[in-house]
Amino acid sequence: MAQIEYPTPLLQLIAQLKRLPGIGARSAERIGVWLLQRGPEFMDPFAATVQKAGSEVAECSVCGFFRTKDLCLICEGAGREDSLLCVVEQPADILPLERSGGYKGHYHTLRGRISPLDNVGPEDLRIGELSKRVRGGIFSEVILALSADVEGEATANYLTEILRDAGGPSLRVTRLARGIPVGGGLESADELTLCRALEGRSLMQ
Amino acid sequence: MAQIEYPTPLLQLIAQLKRLPGIGARSAERIGVWLLQRGPEFMDPFAATVQKAGSEVAECSVCGFFRTKDLCLICEGAGREDSLLCVVEQPADILPLERSGGYKGHYHTLRGRISPLDNVGPEDLRIGELSKRVRGGIFSEVILALSADVEGEATANYLTEILRDAGGPSLRVTRLARGIPVGGGLESADELTLCRALEGRSLMQ
Repeated sequence: MAQIEYPTPLLQLIAQLKRLPGIGARSAERIGVWLLQRGPEFMDPFAATVQKAGSEVAECSVCGFFRTKDLCLICEGAGREDSLLCVVEQPADILPLERSGGYKGHYHTLRGRISPLDNVGPEDLRIGELSKRVRGGIFSEVILALSADVEGEATANYLTEILRDAGGPSLRVTRLARGIPVGGGLESADELTLCRALEGRSLMQ
Repeated sequence: MAQIEYPTPLLQLIAQLKRLPGIGARSAERIGVWLLQRGPEFMDPFAATVQKAGSEVAECSVCGFFRTKDLCLICEGAGREDSLLCVVEQPADILPLERSGGYKGHYHTLRGRISPLDNVGPEDLRIGELSKRVRGGIFSEVILALSADVEGEATANYLTEILRDAGGPSLRVTRLARGIPVGGGLESADELTLCRALEGRSLMQ
């Protein structure tokens, strides 16, 4: 008697779903079966949406954010502070900064960070493009908004050298503050965060 | 200055992903961005797999499992014990039973269970089909392999009435044992499970 398995198209679907980030074998099976139970009325539009996003959305050649036209909403946007550039790791990091309302300048997406363990070196990132933009002389400040971990710090240190070289002595290179998250209590902050929060303490107004 | 957002096709993709089970707003955004960064080379085959599974896989009209041809692998399978029928809630419940190696009979998928809070009544399940199969007189035993919770129990009780009526006094209606999971310690078992494990205790061989 043959081993009973799901039909091949369903197995192929589960295998594809398993490749998505954060989706394990069990979730992939659950989502695959759930989709099948909804049938073609749900799955055809879903497939069309995936295909359409893949064909219509591209990377902005200037800032690295997503775009559908030749320039992206950020690079072509009027009314932005043209002297400020914020460097982020991923395009998904841009929207939280936009939603914060605290920044109105331009962006540059590295598409990753230096991580020798994952075989990601400076040459794999959009650092050449960053250097070129800064050499243009438009920006007075570059804000490094990278992850607050070892690899983010290493990338920030590397970029600082490159940016000082490209932008000259008048360019300010800054990074985001480290400290207690707003709404977070002291008991949930780790020692290193507390250390940084003490170093960066400010006078009460 | 307009609020910056992802391009519309990406927002539509994220909205579709958010509808999948177990995928929240953050996971949907993460997966959507991840897909976009892989580009059409990954997304087109992914979309094709979804569409193909939707168009090629259907529900077996006899047992309710997935099939690609007119009959499913289980219903057309030679060498199965034709006198045994196992009732499960979902098609995804069949494969764990098959993999256990402890069952070689036929299956019947209810496609749900009686749950008044979710507006699922007996008429929403494949109970009429079950009754008809049992009236055929082929089966000597029906095993109810439903969830071990309140709704599973209620569904099992309801089905027992229906099955006794359809199958007559010669039909055995059984259900899976309740007890300590293999590999599980007593300290992790709840009181009700321990109670059921005591009730179902067996003589040492």
